[in-house]
Amino acid sequence: MTALSPADWDKVIIGIDPGTNVMGYGILGVKAKKPAMIAMGVIKLDKFESHYLRLARIYERVLSLVEQYLPDEMAIEAPFFGKNVQSMLKLGRAQGVAMAAALARQVPITEYEPRKIKQAITGVGSASKEQVQEMLRRILSIPRENLLPELDATDALGAALCHFYEQQRPAAQKGYKSWKDFISKNPGKLI
Amino acid sequence: MTALSPADWDKVIIGIDPGTNVMGYGILGVKAKKPAMIAMGVIKLDKFESHYLRLARIYERVLSLVEQYLPDEMAIEAPFFGKNVQSMLKLGRAQGVAMAAALARQVPITEYEPRKIKQAITGVGSASKEQVQEMLRRILSIPRENLLPELDATDALGAALCHFYEQQRPAAQKGYKSWKDFISKNPGKLI
Repeated sequence: MTALSPADWDKVIIGIDPGTNVMGYGILGVKAKKPAMIAMGVIKLDKFESHYLRLARIYERVLSLVEQYLPDEMAIEAPFFGKNVQSMLKLGRAQGVAMAAALARQVPITEYEPRKIKQAITGVGSASKEQVQEMLRRILSIPRENLLPELDATDALGAALCHFYEQQRPAAQKGYKSWKDFISKNPGKLI
Repeated sequence: MTALSPADWDKVIIGIDPGTNVMGYGILGVKAKKPAMIAMGVIKLDKFESHYLRLARIYERVLSLVEQYLPDEMAIEAPFFGKNVQSMLKLGRAQGVAMAAALARQVPITEYEPRKIKQAITGVGSASKEQVQEMLRRILSIPRENLLPELDATDALGAALCHFYEQQRPAAQKGYKSWKDFISKNPGKLI
């Protein structure tokens, strides 16, 4: 964790891994095109029985993270498919309140599928959460003692780093032919 | 529409019918145990291509309704089952941002299944949206010229009126044996 204030970074990205039991977050700072971890953590929700209390907690905590770290952008890990309609509705709500906290402060949101994040961090789309954590630890030089037992935190940090990598890639490499093409391939970038 | 200010009502309930194309809202005022329509309307979202712009719009509009009408409670029409996981994820997000706007101002939320609302308003769980609108028009003495072509508005008002009816019913009629029983049967009432 670094002691720089938000204003010292060229860019700050908040990564969110939303869930209805545990929500992970990771704050990534970028300076001179180099990424560094500012903070990471988890919001534990399983102590709240009521679904509303969980949603309220997500909203409050994400909003307070946004107000504390003043991120320029939010990257959110968003699975597009799930077990059943019930779990997807709940996941959608958790994502919705987390997104609302960003929208409330005009922070643009980009979403990434879990596979895409794993691919960007480890080079393997089917990597385990442990492998993602280990790669992040090496890439961002995170001391082992700063790792959390909950892998949701590194998952969220992974979303933020994946977003940074995506922005670093030259447009040609991504195969965009024009602005219109870029926009059509990146609907999530528009806000 | 009535010209009373929020402070003139004993209670104000905001009803929301969330959707990703159109979101309906209805504001119900209660005075001396009599309900009356304060306002209703729709938030049209289909003009926004980006999913995020739609979510942002829902959040902003619901928050401004909450700030304008100062509701004591929110009633939300919430289907629990849908066509597929994709549509449920999108619906969950729309519900989530609408809920976040209420949570941001400490407004407690109760959700009702569409069937429950139809039952409460018309006496028939399988009633059409047109029947719900017609019953609401009669119950709340809404002039015909104040009705909107979009039935999402009366659906939302129906959610608010359903919530009012639920609160009017004596506990015995609902079959609650104790507070603990009430709480277990009304998890949505806890916030």
